[in-house]
Amino acid sequence: MAKEITSREENYSQWYNDIIKKAGLADKSAVRGCMVIKPYGFAIWENMKAELDRMFKETGHVNAYFPLFIPKSFLSKEADHVEGFAKECAVVTHHRLMNNPDGSGVVVDPSSKLEEELIVRPTSETIIWNTYKDWIKSYRDLPLLINQWANVVRWEMRTRPFLRTTEFLWQEGHTAHATQAEAVAESRLIHDVYAKFAEEFMAMPVIKGSKSENERFAGAVETYTIEALMQDGKALQAGTSHFLGQNFAKAFDVKFSNDKNTEEYVWASSWGVSTRLVGALIMTHSDDQGLVLPPKLAPFHIVIVPIPKPLPELMETIDKLEKELKDAGIRVMVDRDDKKRPGFKFAEYEMKGIPIRFGIGPRDLEKGQIEVARRDTKEKSSVPIEGIVAYAKQLLEEIQNNLLARAKTFRKDHYSSADTFDEFKDILENKGGFIEAHWDGTVETELKIKEQTKATIRCIPLDAKEEEGKCIFSGAPSKRRVIFAKSY
Amino acid sequence: MAKEITSREENYSQWYNDIIKKAGLADKSAVRGCMVIKPYGFAIWENMKAELDRMFKETGHVNAYFPLFIPKSFLSKEADHVEGFAKECAVVTHHRLMNNPDGSGVVVDPSSKLEEELIVRPTSETIIWNTYKDWIKSYRDLPLLINQWANVVRWEMRTRPFLRTTEFLWQEGHTAHATQAEAVAESRLIHDVYAKFAEEFMAMPVIKGSKSENERFAGAVETYTIEALMQDGKALQAGTSHFLGQNFAKAFDVKFSNDKNTEEYVWASSWGVSTRLVGALIMTHSDDQGLVLPPKLAPFHIVIVPIPKPLPELMETIDKLEKELKDAGIRVMVDRDDKKRPGFKFAEYEMKGIPIRFGIGPRDLEKGQIEVARRDTKEKSSVPIEGIVAYAKQLLEEIQNNLLARAKTFRKDHYSSADTFDEFKDILENKGGFIEAHWDGTVETELKIKEQTKATIRCIPLDAKEEEGKCIFSGAPSKRRVIFAKSY
Repeated sequence: MAKEITSREENYSQWYNDIIKKAGLADKSAVRGCMVIKPYGFAIWENMKAELDRMFKETGHVNAYFPLFIPKSFLSKEADHVEGFAKECAVVTHHRLMNNPDGSGVVVDPSSKLEEELIVRPTSETIIWNTYKDWIKSYRDLPLLINQWANVVRWEMRTRPFLRTTEFLWQEGHTAHATQAEAVAESRLIHDVYAKFAEEFMAMPVIKGSKSENERFAGAVETYTIEALMQDGKALQAGTSHFLGQNFAKAFDVKFSNDKNTEEYVWASSWGVSTRLVGALIMTHSDDQGLVLPPKLAPFHIVIVPIPKPLPELMETIDKLEKELKDAGIRVMVDRDDKKRPGFKFAEYEMKGIPIRFGIGPRDLEKGQIEVARRDTKEKSSVPIEGIVAYAKQLLEEIQNNLLARAKTFRKDHYSSADTFDEFKDILENKGGFIEAHWDGTVETELKIKEQTKATIRCIPLDAKEEEGKCIFSGAPSKRRVIFAKSY
Repeated sequence: MAKEITSREENYSQWYNDIIKKAGLADKSAVRGCMVIKPYGFAIWENMKAELDRMFKETGHVNAYFPLFIPKSFLSKEADHVEGFAKECAVVTHHRLMNNPDGSGVVVDPSSKLEEELIVRPTSETIIWNTYKDWIKSYRDLPLLINQWANVVRWEMRTRPFLRTTEFLWQEGHTAHATQAEAVAESRLIHDVYAKFAEEFMAMPVIKGSKSENERFAGAVETYTIEALMQDGKALQAGTSHFLGQNFAKAFDVKFSNDKNTEEYVWASSWGVSTRLVGALIMTHSDDQGLVLPPKLAPFHIVIVPIPKPLPELMETIDKLEKELKDAGIRVMVDRDDKKRPGFKFAEYEMKGIPIRFGIGPRDLEKGQIEVARRDTKEKSSVPIEGIVAYAKQLLEEIQNNLLARAKTFRKDHYSSADTFDEFKDILENKGGFIEAHWDGTVETELKIKEQTKATIRCIPLDAKEEEGKCIFSGAPSKRRVIFAKSY
């Protein structure tokens, strides 16, 4: 049997780490804060990438690739941007090693010092807008709707696999537009794409909103976010899309001549989601038996386990079934190992979160049936082999829907309204989750609430109703409730 | 009209740069030796990636991701490896910038110095084998058949877009095996995959062989290579696959217990192809009108140009045709620009190497036909609209085959045999291309030939016949001819 993992109840944080380890998603590395993404974890990310990439392309975007390195001086061209990123940059200062004269390996060759240090991109606005300067001359060159899939580095002090790592993988879109309206529309279009991806593929409900000034991206005029809720009641920012105004165009002097032949600065958006989504996926659905995956992103939809082992009389049917399932577009694996026992295998595939398990033994064959086990509900049933492919397709859809429904119920149960600060603190302490409450709109209040409760404003929801009220902290008047939570 | 480019005859190197610029494949960047891969160039790389990734997966490989950074000391654990890579590494020494006290931007914060410097991976054998140490305990953990798609950095002194850049994109496979035979078989399997990809997708014939000791990968026991021939008569190493013996297992102490429960070092292979392939593709097929692309890798198969412009009476037919072509899996674009003239557009799409151009004007419609222009031969013909989808599919196949045939003919015309050093030098000077010649097997001779002629041993062909002969340089006995050429 696969070894047990810590329960959520006992130690949520350890539970998360146990799943990552036991399901084979990621491993630590020799480099501080950097993880190794193992094949099974990477397969989930590949499925995410494929769907997101398709969605970006369907909305008119193209991919490109910009350099990993950014000249140090670029960072300081946009005032907010440098404040946001300078403190956590990997800096390249030399370009050669040499043998240590004492014979003990290699040391940096001091003669290879760079004239200007390079930073490893923490995000690419600066190098990209420096490039766009050459690409944009006239309104005919606009819009530019470009995305890149890349690795970025932010020197984080506290890291956690997938959720916060020094190096991470992501996509970053960087678009350029002739008008403010178009750039805003782009950032909101992508905000919608992210929300749709989260709900339809990750089965993860999200709240859509804009960030408060204090939580905005460094250099943005407006940041749109999708906020998800994890099972410990903490929120997780799952994707952000920024309207950048003309900030980067001004910093890098990117102008275009409009159709009246006068020069204007270009308007911009940028947007990104990262391997953090894998962490979000784990924390949204998994249970004390291990990982639970929505079928649309699972590396395998179905595992077939011959019982008690791959006997020749079983394998003919199983091989045929495997082919039929594959032909129907179902990602299936057959466990052909003849040493491990079924019970051990069952626990292992539960740990790995494969949505459906087929168990097939001689007696099942006689009866023309299969034992079907669902990972989400752990229900088992005997199902006729005849018509099993259609049954499986239907069941995968049902599991996908069930996971979303379950996560929505959880969120509903952890969504509260607070009218006083005492109530607010009480909910945070005893229940967690999202809390909608009135806020006076000042950074000062926001920071004080954070200081006293660790809760932050996750977003100002796009669909917030106008409602007269008083700030739970200052008592000053407020026109709408915003969403607070403790967060990752 | 798109501006003309330098002809190959006039200045081959400038021709190459002109194509990259005018076809919109890549751009220079603000960072020395790093390029920006523009959307059109990146789309070619994406098509390459998709096919290669499919081929790797079909042969049992999975993807994973390892850190960008490698602790400096790892490099020196394998003696040859450090010699090969230490001289061209980007070195990260600090992790923070701070405002310059004089207010002039940012400087490196000296208090953020790393305890051990990190290098940006030039290739990942060291960090991966350091990880494999934790993953491999028993023969049951083997083989590991892992690939990663990643960026790598080698601080090159002379760079050229795609062919040699400081940062480049590639895939690197790193496999671990229980026996020498399996590791050798793996490196040869991938060698075959690379050759198949080059011929079937890139329409680029290659010579398969092993490298001489002097040209081997730093740390390999044997390097297999595919060598292509460019139109200037120079060879280009297009992909390599290495049998690494137990070198990295010994350097990182990676042992497994075999089925007799005794410990052995693990056997390894590694293999990679990079964005260099885009450069190879350009140089194999393109002509003095611009890029020529094999259909299987072209971002668009067909461009439809309404003539003289997108008149309403044309667009109904064209929109319908676009849909039919897309439904048949053909990548089609329609030029809906109503300002540029057809002649300008034709030149532009020739420059971009789109394999087929459809021109459709009112008179064509009356006659129920389309003007079809092939990019490879520049032939034009009128073809009935009825059945055009099937015709297009057939024509794309024909173009793919024609490009391969043309490249094979070129290679045949630039493949020579030399029996004396004078003959050898004469061919190199007047004709270029591959030269098969006897060599005494010593590094000394190889280096002297290189010194005097700039030609290197590209490979010892796998299919070389045994043949008694004398080294063209030293006169010492030789048992087979090897392939020489000047190279990129």
